[in-house]
Amino acid sequence: MTSNNPLLASTIAPPVMEARRWIAGKAFGADRPLINVSQAAPVDPPPDQMRQAMAEAVLRQDEVHLYGPDLGLPALRTALADSITRRYQGQVSAKNIAITSGCNQAFCAAIATLAAPGDEVILPVPWYFNHKMWLDMNGIATVPLACGDDLVPDAGDAAALITARTRAIVLVTPNNPTGVEYPPTVIAAFRDLARHHGITLIIDETYRDFHSRPGAPHELFGDPDWDDTVIHLYSFSKSFRLTGHRVGAMATSPARLSEVEKFIDTVTICPAQLGQHAALWGLRNLGDWLEGERRKILVRGDAMRSGFAPLAERGWRLRGCGAYFAYVQHPFDLPSDQLARALVDQCAVLALPGSMFTPEGDAAGASHLRIAFANSDEKGIAEVLKRLATVRP
Amino acid sequence: MTSNNPLLASTIAPPVMEARRWIAGKAFGADRPLINVSQAAPVDPPPDQMRQAMAEAVLRQDEVHLYGPDLGLPALRTALADSITRRYQGQVSAKNIAITSGCNQAFCAAIATLAAPGDEVILPVPWYFNHKMWLDMNGIATVPLACGDDLVPDAGDAAALITARTRAIVLVTPNNPTGVEYPPTVIAAFRDLARHHGITLIIDETYRDFHSRPGAPHELFGDPDWDDTVIHLYSFSKSFRLTGHRVGAMATSPARLSEVEKFIDTVTICPAQLGQHAALWGLRNLGDWLEGERRKILVRGDAMRSGFAPLAERGWRLRGCGAYFAYVQHPFDLPSDQLARALVDQCAVLALPGSMFTPEGDAAGASHLRIAFANSDEKGIAEVLKRLATVRP
Repeated sequence: MTSNNPLLASTIAPPVMEARRWIAGKAFGADRPLINVSQAAPVDPPPDQMRQAMAEAVLRQDEVHLYGPDLGLPALRTALADSITRRYQGQVSAKNIAITSGCNQAFCAAIATLAAPGDEVILPVPWYFNHKMWLDMNGIATVPLACGDDLVPDAGDAAALITARTRAIVLVTPNNPTGVEYPPTVIAAFRDLARHHGITLIIDETYRDFHSRPGAPHELFGDPDWDDTVIHLYSFSKSFRLTGHRVGAMATSPARLSEVEKFIDTVTICPAQLGQHAALWGLRNLGDWLEGERRKILVRGDAMRSGFAPLAERGWRLRGCGAYFAYVQHPFDLPSDQLARALVDQCAVLALPGSMFTPEGDAAGASHLRIAFANSDEKGIAEVLKRLATVRP
Repeated sequence: MTSNNPLLASTIAPPVMEARRWIAGKAFGADRPLINVSQAAPVDPPPDQMRQAMAEAVLRQDEVHLYGPDLGLPALRTALADSITRRYQGQVSAKNIAITSGCNQAFCAAIATLAAPGDEVILPVPWYFNHKMWLDMNGIATVPLACGDDLVPDAGDAAALITARTRAIVLVTPNNPTGVEYPPTVIAAFRDLARHHGITLIIDETYRDFHSRPGAPHELFGDPDWDDTVIHLYSFSKSFRLTGHRVGAMATSPARLSEVEKFIDTVTICPAQLGQHAALWGLRNLGDWLEGERRKILVRGDAMRSGFAPLAERGWRLRGCGAYFAYVQHPFDLPSDQLARALVDQCAVLALPGSMFTPEGDAAGASHLRIAFANSDEKGIAEVLKRLATVRP
């Protein structure tokens, strides 16, 4: 056996795949089927009209089967730029946009343009595990930024962590795993901090279409010089239920996109074409539908909050709740990965432990769980909460 | 403006995108339209029956719209393993197979499991540019291996280049850019060399379905321990005309696939589902069709060889010819990138210069062109050759 790259070898295994192994081969009673709140993804296909449009494209548009431009379909880049410009009352053009093979790739490409081995990137804790994994496998040091009790990071705290090797700060809002929405003033403070130090602010807004407020979640794009400091990441996967087609996006400076183009050309050549056609169709036709989806998920968040009281009486805390996620603190003297397995066995609930989103050995990670409730209706959420109340670790 | 990663900044820009810029905005007469022999990709969509099957899947199979396993659809992994086992008379199981977002990603993932910054990888010259680009952007040193006049690398020569930092040798056969098919004895010698030194042999067989001989192009898979040394790369893109769907594959050890899974999970989560369904449909239904495509391309290679005489009289040499490519040496005292631009302007032919496949300043690179003739019929190939004979640099 030939040797392995030690950087990749010391990167953790994919958490979602590991969680799937916890349920593999297990039988759950028909009276109490497994409730899977582990993955942050729609479980339903896109609306029928979109499927019809996709099938038509497969049959009639030859170009969906052929290579496209590395940075994505020009029409989709334009449509997304227009959509961001409208929503954020900002100044974003097609030249600022790259379409990527999912939002994870957008993050990877962004970091590839910014940081070399030995550099540092600041991630608020808890973080999105694939961000940490990409930094680890590239030999880039993750500098953890502790958040306050409200799970919102503070730019002043971040300032103390910046060194000569710092290349970027990453914000995810609405946050994965906590569901917390960062206030516009906080986001602006991070932008100011990044600009002051000549580093980049990466803002991952995968879940922005499920934000509790309609309109602009922040004012970054109103700054005509936004692209000297900000990289915005987006995903069509959650909004239009296109996870199987791998289509995400990035907004940054045209100069940085020349660097992104090298990365994408080398790793995947171009994003899959059909997903891009679907995303374009969605931007043009699914605005009202998406607003309905947002309202549906907001109702589910309300159900989580209003139904939490019995758990709170048992010592649980609802630390964050928004977009797809609730981040809950449990009252047990048991690490969260063990509790998560007990939940599978005792309660037929699959949730991810906080330890998958935090530094190794982190006490807060050991005491939290992420509940991705977006696919559960109000009845389903009530059932999850009821089951959590019964666990006896 | 924040700073860039120097490793990515010093990586070349994507050659195919650069070549596209050479023709951008230029008008070509209707009597002499541009002949584009620059990109190694089908220009036609897949067969109608496959498109029908894909449209049906879009409409009826919810799972094509949802995340799938990181390493690909189990049914496709099994079907590809079976296909390799039959064709190579080898021993390959589904546990050896990962499906990737194109064959470029398979290479990137393979290298990610093997090499860290500062390590070395041996590439025969000329090389496939995206291989070089991935090594460059990861801080892995490319060690060029000169080939003989037949453009076949020699394992003895490679032995002299191996150091304590060498992690892999990469063979592409049939070769891109030269079209040369490496003999099974040469391939076996590289495997033996790699095994002796405890390093990996990566063999990229993207164009294997257009090999001049049917059957096994080498005997590596007949070795029951093949997966301790060999990583095989494959692409469905060229064979089934699925470039727009991004679907490639890798065969390696199950242990290495656990590392590959980390990389894929982080970069793209999973390959796009529809392309995988199409590839599976193709493996089950398009065997005869693909054999017909192979024969068609072999006829085109014959046309290239038999039509080359007038160019040879002008001092050109046909150095390699096979699968999608002819690799030709020109007689001019002009670097190939300048000649390639002259060909656009004077002859309305777009071909890639050898300098895109060789180390900077390489004399052989400056004197060669790659002609990706697979999309030109015999008449088209005759026309390309006729036009090349008229260039006056």
